Amino acid sequence: MADLGRISLNQITINRWSVAEAVEGCARHGIGWIGLWRDKVADCGLSKSARLVRDAGLRVSSLCRGGFFAAHGVAALEARRDDNRRAVDEAAALGTDVLVLVCGPPLGRDLDGARRMVAEGIADLAPYAAAAGVKLGIEPLHPMFAAERSVIVTLAEALTLAETSSPDQVGVIVDAYHVWWDPELWIQLRRATGRIVGFHVSDWLVPLPDLLLGRGMMGDGTVDLLRLRLAVEAAGYLGPIEVEIFNQAIWDAPGDEILALIKERSLAAV
Amino acid sequence: MADLGRISLNQITINRWSVAEAVEGCARHGIGWIGLWRDKVADCGLSKSARLVRDAGLRVSSLCRGGFFAAHGVAALEARRDDNRRAVDEAAALGTDVLVLVCGPPLGRDLDGARRMVAEGIADLAPYAAAAGVKLGIEPLHPMFAAERSVIVTLAEALTLAETSSPDQVGVIVDAYHVWWDPELWIQLRRATGRIVGFHVSDWLVPLPDLLLGRGMMGDGTVDLLRLRLAVEAAGYLGPIEVEIFNQAIWDAPGDEILALIKERSLAAV
Repeated sequence: MADLGRISLNQITINRWSVAEAVEGCARHGIGWIGLWRDKVADCGLSKSARLVRDAGLRVSSLCRGGFFAAHGVAALEARRDDNRRAVDEAAALGTDVLVLVCGPPLGRDLDGARRMVAEGIADLAPYAAAAGVKLGIEPLHPMFAAERSVIVTLAEALTLAETSSPDQVGVIVDAYHVWWDPELWIQLRRATGRIVGFHVSDWLVPLPDLLLGRGMMGDGTVDLLRLRLAVEAAGYLGPIEVEIFNQAIWDAPGDEILALIKERSLAAV
Repeated sequence: MADLGRISLNQITINRWSVAEAVEGCARHGIGWIGLWRDKVADCGLSKSARLVRDAGLRVSSLCRGGFFAAHGVAALEARRDDNRRAVDEAAALGTDVLVLVCGPPLGRDLDGARRMVAEGIADLAPYAAAAGVKLGIEPLHPMFAAERSVIVTLAEALTLAETSSPDQVGVIVDAYHVWWDPELWIQLRRATGRIVGFHVSDWLVPLPDLLLGRGMMGDGTVDLLRLRLAVEAAGYLGPIEVEIFNQAIWDAPGDEILALIKERSLAAV
């Protein structure tokens, strides 16, 4: 990419930093967007987090994360519902219009049952979110997470879910690590026109160091990120690009070094 | 399942055993089928392997494996072609009519290019195999292997490839570990009617111990193997069911214990 105006630091990439530290880091490095995580916002305090971001002149690209709809029993389902509504309220308070959803978990061997609960959960949450000015972003996760985190594992499946609501209420998040392998990727990205509400970049390392904590810095892996960015843009998404990397080695490195590398690699490989 | 007549020991499950030991083990435990691997057949000798199997009254469910079509340069592509023809000859010599294909590898970031080479490789190999009485079984691998092993990662993609040849020449292998997560699984299994030439079982463990060596014994994981077997049967496949488990702990256990457990779990969980 030619400039860094769309790059957003997803907070998990520099996991050791608090909201205050991440905000200062972005300001120091001229990064204009930040993607926040609910646990870190809770540690800092919701209104203080919102003030820190605003005072630094940053914009919040998304809040991670709602979802986790499936549960056994009425009380557990109610608790999930309440928590998702709180997540929407937090997103609105932080000034972002996107809440990222992780659409699971599976419940034992019944994937179909969990998928129905996810659909019901989204249908229930979408009007509440719309009233708060927040869009729901369904993020398909890589199929290797189907047993533990997300039963929505392809862009096609995420779009089928999203299309049951209006485009101004529910969209999809395209995360390079999760979707790059899909033989239907390019067709589904065309179908996603007007539905993409977020774009996350990282890379797929060979060999993969770890399922969860093995994502790579852009340019270090096998994903054609430039082609992916152009296809996402062709589908109408010109919003912030979140750098979201779960990687132990990156977590262990100094945050300022990682921010410098993010800028270098965003220009070279995305 | 009600009886063990269709169970086949895929040789990799008891990786320390030679062909001779695996054949003796199957005979000792009343298992009537065996799935052989080319490297172990080579260690034993092709004609000796064929004789051992025949003398024990076993049948060979498949030979693992051909494929690995994609390569850079004419000489490398020719070498792959020659090796695949040898694999067909070996399958015929061993008396099996199924050669399992691993359809990769990827070449750098160009998945589309590798997919084209796979399609060309299969189109080239299929008539040669047909002349030898051997069917090619395209086995889609789990998407987490897309960067290193197989660019064919969904049953839909495997079927689209297979359907360019006649059903008596090219089919698909359904392996539970590789396909269980797929939201299109049940639809694609219906589409696969008349095209399934093999069915492999194992299980998906939570947490996954390892990408390659983390498969579980049937019943220890999250896969609904009974539903899958019934769907595979409904698609017309009533042939051998290979137990194929890559797992370090199982490899470290005594082979006879594993065979006893395979029988128990096949009855209880498949």
